Amino acid sequence: MATGCVFCDGDGGRRLWRDARCRVVLTDEPFAGFCRVIWNAHAREMTDLAAPDRAHLMDVVFAVEAALRARLRPTKMNLAALGNVTPHLHWHVIPRFGDDSHFPQPVWGARQRAAAPRAVPDDFVPALARDLSATLGALAVG
Amino acid sequence: MATGCVFCDGDGGRRLWRDARCRVVLTDEPFAGFCRVIWNAHAREMTDLAAPDRAHLMDVVFAVEAALRARLRPTKMNLAALGNVTPHLHWHVIPRFGDDSHFPQPVWGARQRAAAPRAVPDDFVPALARDLSATLGALAVG
Repeated sequence: MATGCVFCDGDGGRRLWRDARCRVVLTDEPFAGFCRVIWNAHAREMTDLAAPDRAHLMDVVFAVEAALRARLRPTKMNLAALGNVTPHLHWHVIPRFGDDSHFPQPVWGARQRAAAPRAVPDDFVPALARDLSATLGALAVG
Repeated sequence: MATGCVFCDGDGGRRLWRDARCRVVLTDEPFAGFCRVIWNAHAREMTDLAAPDRAHLMDVVFAVEAALRARLRPTKMNLAALGNVTPHLHWHVIPRFGDDSHFPQPVWGARQRAAAPRAVPDDFVPALARDLSATLGALAVG
């Protein structure tokens, strides 16, 4: 049954990893490698979670950051939990490149230039899924 | 000696709390209660820190979130570690209000309206400093 919350009603992207508490998806945002880590249950803020759940969610966020850094060698990583439009707890994990469309502005800021063409490697999705399973110790890609 | 990094050369705001690893400051950004948690040493990414240091920094971020929620009752909290312009590890901890200048856009996004007047309480700085010392178990406000 549709709840009206996009992260309750669907995965929110191409699933790379999940466990009982949260999932990692690759988004279709126009930034190469832009992933989200989404808490499965409908919680609003980090401080609405119990401390062990907060720690687990951050461990997953940092595993995604590490995998993206190793695979894509970005100029900078950006992490953000905003949720003003979709108040279902999720983290944006965004590899940023000096020649991307908005750098050094946040991806939500003013566009700086036409985006340099940048494709992720052909094997990016299964490779990142393997990285996350290896780090986080659970199986992936439903 | 000036290093050329604003978070190495100065506190980066009005100091509310600090320990040997990180500090909490109130910024002068035009969003009531906008705090930053700044890692004292010049590190670049969360995954450049050892896991216990990452966990400590996030504990401080979540203590700030909890204190701001209790004191200001925001519509939503926003958390972000970007650092594209200043690549010295820091977290933005931003209470958001439905009538603030940018809501529901990120504070870096498109302005939506003139900001509603919103002042923090008169005792906000010492009160938040006390909250953080109580939660984090160390002394504050240098």
